[in-house]
Amino acid sequence: MKYSGVFPKASKAVPSDSESVNSSLLARGGFIHKEMAGIYSFLPLGTRVLRKIQDLIREEMVKIGSQEIILPAISSLDVWKQTGREGIDVLYHMVSRGGQKLVLNPTTEEIITPLVRDYIKSHRDLPLSVFQIIDKFRDELRAKSGILRGREFNMKDGYSFHRDQEDLDRYYDVVTKTYHGIFDRLGIGKDTVFTYASGGDFSDFSHEFQAICPVGEDTIFHCDNCNSAVNREIISSHSTCPKCNNDKLEEKRGVEVGNIFKLGTRFSTAFHLNYKDEKGLDNPVVMGCYGIGPTRTMGTIVELSHDDKGIIWPESVAPFSKHMFSVGKDESVVKFGMEIYEELKKRGIDTLYDDRKDVSNGEKFATADLLGIPERVVISKKLMEAGNVEVKKRKETVPEVISMESFFNRP
Amino acid sequence: MKYSGVFPKASKAVPSDSESVNSSLLARGGFIHKEMAGIYSFLPLGTRVLRKIQDLIREEMVKIGSQEIILPAISSLDVWKQTGREGIDVLYHMVSRGGQKLVLNPTTEEIITPLVRDYIKSHRDLPLSVFQIIDKFRDELRAKSGILRGREFNMKDGYSFHRDQEDLDRYYDVVTKTYHGIFDRLGIGKDTVFTYASGGDFSDFSHEFQAICPVGEDTIFHCDNCNSAVNREIISSHSTCPKCNNDKLEEKRGVEVGNIFKLGTRFSTAFHLNYKDEKGLDNPVVMGCYGIGPTRTMGTIVELSHDDKGIIWPESVAPFSKHMFSVGKDESVVKFGMEIYEELKKRGIDTLYDDRKDVSNGEKFATADLLGIPERVVISKKLMEAGNVEVKKRKETVPEVISMESFFNRP
Repeated sequence: MKYSGVFPKASKAVPSDSESVNSSLLARGGFIHKEMAGIYSFLPLGTRVLRKIQDLIREEMVKIGSQEIILPAISSLDVWKQTGREGIDVLYHMVSRGGQKLVLNPTTEEIITPLVRDYIKSHRDLPLSVFQIIDKFRDELRAKSGILRGREFNMKDGYSFHRDQEDLDRYYDVVTKTYHGIFDRLGIGKDTVFTYASGGDFSDFSHEFQAICPVGEDTIFHCDNCNSAVNREIISSHSTCPKCNNDKLEEKRGVEVGNIFKLGTRFSTAFHLNYKDEKGLDNPVVMGCYGIGPTRTMGTIVELSHDDKGIIWPESVAPFSKHMFSVGKDESVVKFGMEIYEELKKRGIDTLYDDRKDVSNGEKFATADLLGIPERVVISKKLMEAGNVEVKKRKETVPEVISMESFFNRP
Repeated sequence: MKYSGVFPKASKAVPSDSESVNSSLLARGGFIHKEMAGIYSFLPLGTRVLRKIQDLIREEMVKIGSQEIILPAISSLDVWKQTGREGIDVLYHMVSRGGQKLVLNPTTEEIITPLVRDYIKSHRDLPLSVFQIIDKFRDELRAKSGILRGREFNMKDGYSFHRDQEDLDRYYDVVTKTYHGIFDRLGIGKDTVFTYASGGDFSDFSHEFQAICPVGEDTIFHCDNCNSAVNREIISSHSTCPKCNNDKLEEKRGVEVGNIFKLGTRFSTAFHLNYKDEKGLDNPVVMGCYGIGPTRTMGTIVELSHDDKGIIWPESVAPFSKHMFSVGKDESVVKFGMEIYEELKKRGIDTLYDDRKDVSNGEKFATADLLGIPERVVISKKLMEAGNVEVKKRKETVPEVISMESFFNRP
């Protein structure tokens, strides 16, 4: 895509209400636009990144047999009363013109459980795994971490349904492995630790995927021995590592980018979600739930992967894979740039071509650093005449001059 | 995909609160699940159809240079006051815990206009076209037409920004042509007529794309001569066809699947969205807006394309392109079926394979008719031994026996 046509252009100005590195860099790069505290619009470049994160998560969920659905944002307050959760403080409440009490869903156990009840009859209908990638809503009093904590935010939430605890445990381990794979592919795997957290009344633990990061809102205690962690909320009762019993845990800050939870029969009992076993007897369905926040993950990637010049996107979620421009305004170089751009397009290499004529070379270099596309490709008259281009990985500091031939024939 | 793993299975039972053909067939086929009046969940098969409709619309919008964005569902009541639209009766109202008055967006002129104002400075920043495909909300008192009129519904809304009326007119014609192309690709082009509707205070007309359909909520007057129509709302002042002046117009019912509107400077004036021209003078930006409802369109396709046995999906949005099953339970036939299924998969042909062993042949035929996948492929021992398969287009009545070779080598 030509950068001259991209809405909007990068800006040098740090937003006056900049509250975090992620919101500042994403706003300056033209990825997001703040509407209110905790509520952001995604601009074209941001939409590209968010879609890539969503598509990657979708692909991994489908691989483990989960089926995509779309539940509504609005639900009736009544279903929340059935589980005793109508008092959750972050619920947004509304009353329809017809007098119906409604809420905006912060999570959807109360919607998916009665839905599934309409179809699950027998043990032959189990196990079942479904997921969705839609916006969720939380009436947060403080939302000051950019897209790390939103009042409206994108969420992948999945739910699984099983005949017994053993089958849930089996699938829970499958999802755990998939989640590690997702964070690896998103480029934050090495910073993201499997963390033991409160299991409520129903499980020993729930588990969080905590990206270790100074701006994280959670305090975790990290075990260097097995690379697990314990959330502060349970540290008093679990002061050693639950996995390897190491008692030297280090306090760190984490962003909860994912969480998985064995719900057991908490919701199936409330909504009478039962199945008939081989003997024709009714049993409550055993449930698990699995969340990842695509918008929060996008912010976390920026927090973990940037320098003082801008963002450093991992290839898997970068809005483009190459960022090309010419130094100098010589017509022959501009023409040459267009030819390379067209050739890259033909080869299916997603390139942002900064074709602007009214900005300095310095601004083009600064824009490339700010936008954080994995590889910068620079052409000039001198390079062109020698049959070369200059390439530089965003995460490296030293550019490399290579021949046109090797540029096009690299793997 | 194997049908044994699809959630949920088709059902013979007509839902007790069935209110329309689209909601009844889509519920029975396992495409949608009703949560409340006007609020539906999309099940895995329905999600596949909806995504195909969205992807098709996205592809066509990108072709005409529109850039995808994602605006939030929540906005501040304040922005609606700035345009005097805070009294719209279908707004859902909320008050946050912090005391902020919020609404759920039924449309987003009030969000996109101030957003764009933060970036558009000069005539060089124009024209600009953006679109999004997200859920919108309307507090409807009566929502009884399945997914034709929802309280929460999916919407593609696009907005364009221009330096003058002439440039808006030019782009408006581009979008008009694109919309006809979209409805053609969605299989309802021949039923969808360009309809003159009220232009409010700012334009002579707005334009609707009305799918002529007995269950439509709109009354339109159709011109057989040029295949345009006039919406009843303006028929008193425009009793002849505005396009060809024909005075013999026929009253029909229509579903408004799309609408386009020249907003002029209505919103740019309210939000002070100006640009500097070549002389450095401020001018208000001239705007257009362009809507298509993917969920409504999905319901309209079902209303227009079904028979007494079920849905007849056009290829472009069908959840799968082939629906295969075997007649008889002979092990050799079942094995043969799996081989054909694997071969189709290898060739990238999206096939639903009804591999269920506990249902009758009759139920498999009935399920195929209900789900409405474009081509049914049946195998049996007799057909297998002769090296043949039986194929039948969903929209045709007579099946055809063809050789395996021609089955795999058809274009």
